[in-house]
Amino acid sequence: MEKLDKMCRDLHKEDKLHRTKGYDEVCAKLGETKVFVFSTPHGRPADKCVEALKPHLKKGDVIIDCGNEHWKNTERRQRDLDPMGVHYIGCGVSGGYQSARAGPSMSPGGSAEGLVKVMPFLRSIAAKDNEGRPCTNPVGPGGSGHYVKMVHNGIEQGMMSVLAEVWLLLTQGLGLSNEEVGKILNSWNEKGPLRNCFLVAIGVDIQRTKDKNAQYVVSQIRDKVVQDADEEEGTGIWTCEEAVARHVPAASILSAHLFRCASSDLARRAKNRKAGGGNQIKPQKLRIDSSAREAFIESLHKTTYFCFLACFAQGLDIIRRKDKDSDWKLDYRKILQLWRGGCIITAEHITDLLDGMYARGDHDPDSVLSNEEVERELSSCFQPAKEIVLKAIEADLFVPATSQTLEYYKYENSVSDKSSSMTPSPSPTAFHELCLLTFRVTKTHLPTQFMEAQLDYFGEHMFESKDDPMRGVQKGEHHYEWKPAKGSSDK
Amino acid sequence: MEKLDKMCRDLHKEDKLHRTKGYDEVCAKLGETKVFVFSTPHGRPADKCVEALKPHLKKGDVIIDCGNEHWKNTERRQRDLDPMGVHYIGCGVSGGYQSARAGPSMSPGGSAEGLVKVMPFLRSIAAKDNEGRPCTNPVGPGGSGHYVKMVHNGIEQGMMSVLAEVWLLLTQGLGLSNEEVGKILNSWNEKGPLRNCFLVAIGVDIQRTKDKNAQYVVSQIRDKVVQDADEEEGTGIWTCEEAVARHVPAASILSAHLFRCASSDLARRAKNRKAGGGNQIKPQKLRIDSSAREAFIESLHKTTYFCFLACFAQGLDIIRRKDKDSDWKLDYRKILQLWRGGCIITAEHITDLLDGMYARGDHDPDSVLSNEEVERELSSCFQPAKEIVLKAIEADLFVPATSQTLEYYKYENSVSDKSSSMTPSPSPTAFHELCLLTFRVTKTHLPTQFMEAQLDYFGEHMFESKDDPMRGVQKGEHHYEWKPAKGSSDK
Repeated sequence: MEKLDKMCRDLHKEDKLHRTKGYDEVCAKLGETKVFVFSTPHGRPADKCVEALKPHLKKGDVIIDCGNEHWKNTERRQRDLDPMGVHYIGCGVSGGYQSARAGPSMSPGGSAEGLVKVMPFLRSIAAKDNEGRPCTNPVGPGGSGHYVKMVHNGIEQGMMSVLAEVWLLLTQGLGLSNEEVGKILNSWNEKGPLRNCFLVAIGVDIQRTKDKNAQYVVSQIRDKVVQDADEEEGTGIWTCEEAVARHVPAASILSAHLFRCASSDLARRAKNRKAGGGNQIKPQKLRIDSSAREAFIESLHKTTYFCFLACFAQGLDIIRRKDKDSDWKLDYRKILQLWRGGCIITAEHITDLLDGMYARGDHDPDSVLSNEEVERELSSCFQPAKEIVLKAIEADLFVPATSQTLEYYKYENSVSDKSSSMTPSPSPTAFHELCLLTFRVTKTHLPTQFMEAQLDYFGEHMFESKDDPMRGVQKGEHHYEWKPAKGSSDK
Repeated sequence: MEKLDKMCRDLHKEDKLHRTKGYDEVCAKLGETKVFVFSTPHGRPADKCVEALKPHLKKGDVIIDCGNEHWKNTERRQRDLDPMGVHYIGCGVSGGYQSARAGPSMSPGGSAEGLVKVMPFLRSIAAKDNEGRPCTNPVGPGGSGHYVKMVHNGIEQGMMSVLAEVWLLLTQGLGLSNEEVGKILNSWNEKGPLRNCFLVAIGVDIQRTKDKNAQYVVSQIRDKVVQDADEEEGTGIWTCEEAVARHVPAASILSAHLFRCASSDLARRAKNRKAGGGNQIKPQKLRIDSSAREAFIESLHKTTYFCFLACFAQGLDIIRRKDKDSDWKLDYRKILQLWRGGCIITAEHITDLLDGMYARGDHDPDSVLSNEEVERELSSCFQPAKEIVLKAIEADLFVPATSQTLEYYKYENSVSDKSSSMTPSPSPTAFHELCLLTFRVTKTHLPTQFMEAQLDYFGEHMFESKDDPMRGVQKGEHHYEWKPAKGSSDK
């Protein structure tokens, strides 16, 4: 606080900072067109700020909300202020507390006119990517800026869980020292598919940092992440809610979120463990021969990449679904540019890979996994990821997000029934063409086949037959009377 | 339809059914105090029905909404009708379409006065348990009836995924015939921890049912479950949203839900697979010696129980959290009674086990896993569940909910740091006593330790030290300046 006070006094002397006693005085000192930037906790605090400013606002004024606000609140305020001709820009900001100096990634959304006004300012303060381009772009209308930032944080939660799971495999699993793990993370950050990943880079520092007593700081930290459960931070929660509400199977992101939620309540975990069940769980060192250690570490490298890429695919699929639902017409290359620097999910190779995909337009826009290059990358890491999950589970180590990513990848890539190499369907549909494709038929029907039979049994939910044409989300037209009701003549 | 028409004509003759031409005529024919029962799709259709009835309603009238309505809509209608003295009862109904004859499980919630009026009627039509007691009870105030039914459906989704995953291991994994699998499910349904489970029981029928061409019906069904993704059914989605919003790590339920959502879009899966990645996935028969087959099937039995019980624990934890948030003061034994018959999640042993726990009150009410008996059951199935997950992943079979349940159980039972057997903390807290307990210390810190270090690094999120007293969801008080900003004097 003393340092902050001194900094403020210095800025005040240089006429760069002005202390005022409330909204009246602030507004009186500003010129004709006013631009406000604030970053407060989401919800009520931001509402109070907007309400207090409102009597002072007039046509052409701009508010840039740089908090982690829920996109619905942003849109509510836009509906409130639009009739006055005031532009409310919901601007996601990522970069952490140090980005005040280094420059953050900024995701502004709102009216086209408002965005035109603020972009020069945002470009000047935003982080720059490797080529010096600012990590900000007008995202789109309404709450799209805050929406994209929200999903950024969802992707972040997925990536952080995966990296933490891998960290445990390296430390407890392989028994490596802090320095050894730091060296491995550093090599991943230097080249290969995880090059220039912010989370990997800071992981190196974290592994190496010692306190004034020469003790590793990370070793002193308790395994609790409370910021979701104590409702300080909403974005991870909202990303999960959006995935569920819009039917996007973002399984890595959701499993990661629940894991960190569970971690938050140590007292609860302690009570559960005391009840006795935990005694069955005996985390062990991995059974890896020293000769196989290097190969195993390389599998961990590939697994991390596999899961990071899956998190991006899931996040982009969520944005795409909302984009379609709200007709935002987003430019995904511009979104990727936001993430090239200054933000937590910066991952150079992954962004390049996805940028190439959007540039070529060679995938179904609703599914990142439908891109051949993305699939080539993922499939080349599938066996290593499987190996890692097997070894981790065998040793009772924790892989909630990693194992769930493996399952996600399997079920999102599974098709097998007669229609996968069948004759054209009698009733052409939008997906008719798919029926004509001949897949290499491996028997990979999902067990949801049995689930669908159960739903039809008790709920008359109607199923699709394997002879029906291949379609998307569309109700089947068959019902079987599995157990005719007593008294029914239809046996 | 012909049969339905005939049935209606017969009932009409017997003066049990009356055809009318709209709300006016219906209401004119009814006596002084009117009771309406309807079951329509949630949201708008139910709203239209209530709006149309409203002009005819007067003090003391009752509406029983038996649809799968969102509890928030139920409460909105209660707020609307309460001032008129009209009782709006949100009554969840489970049992499927055949329950019209056999009697459903019914979960009514609303005003105490309204519930008193409707209970005799509901008791008369509800399903009966093994001892002849009706499977209905007044749940509580507001939308609690619909809330409990919503969570019932969430538990159902978890159980159905687990059973489907196990089904695939039996059929494709072990290569057993439909009849063999039917026999196994039948033996599980007859005795042991899965005795009298509705889903297991109908699984037997499903495995055995042949169509008129002597073909197994289940084998003809496509692996798509669309009812969530096409928004016909909301309860599974809402359960997941509630779990996330209230920070309950209901990982089995959520992973199951995302899995069935992913199954719904076959066209999407086909496009992903065509992109090439799926070729890495080669579901195989399990590598099980014939001599080990019986033991493996018994492990599947235990795994199914392990996961079913976890789904109940998660669902009850969600209800409990909402109960506390809304001060509903629910009686959990009465809720379990709702589930003893007529509904999809009927599971005799599990209900008995949990009923005993609530009767004794020997667990932390916020966490079903804190009960010793529940933990004894789960821990006795942990090794079998682990074995099953390992074998399934090895063979590229699908275990999204089963594997996630294993992870859930591990992380919900993990505690290990200095404080787990430490000296009393200097500042006593509500959980102080826990610090005094001596756990058998296995090193089971979660990898969220590393995540927390990362959050503190970039977000100054503050962490708890392992030396701090053991607490619940409460923000830590330590920050380390991992990488002092450039220009800072504090190196």
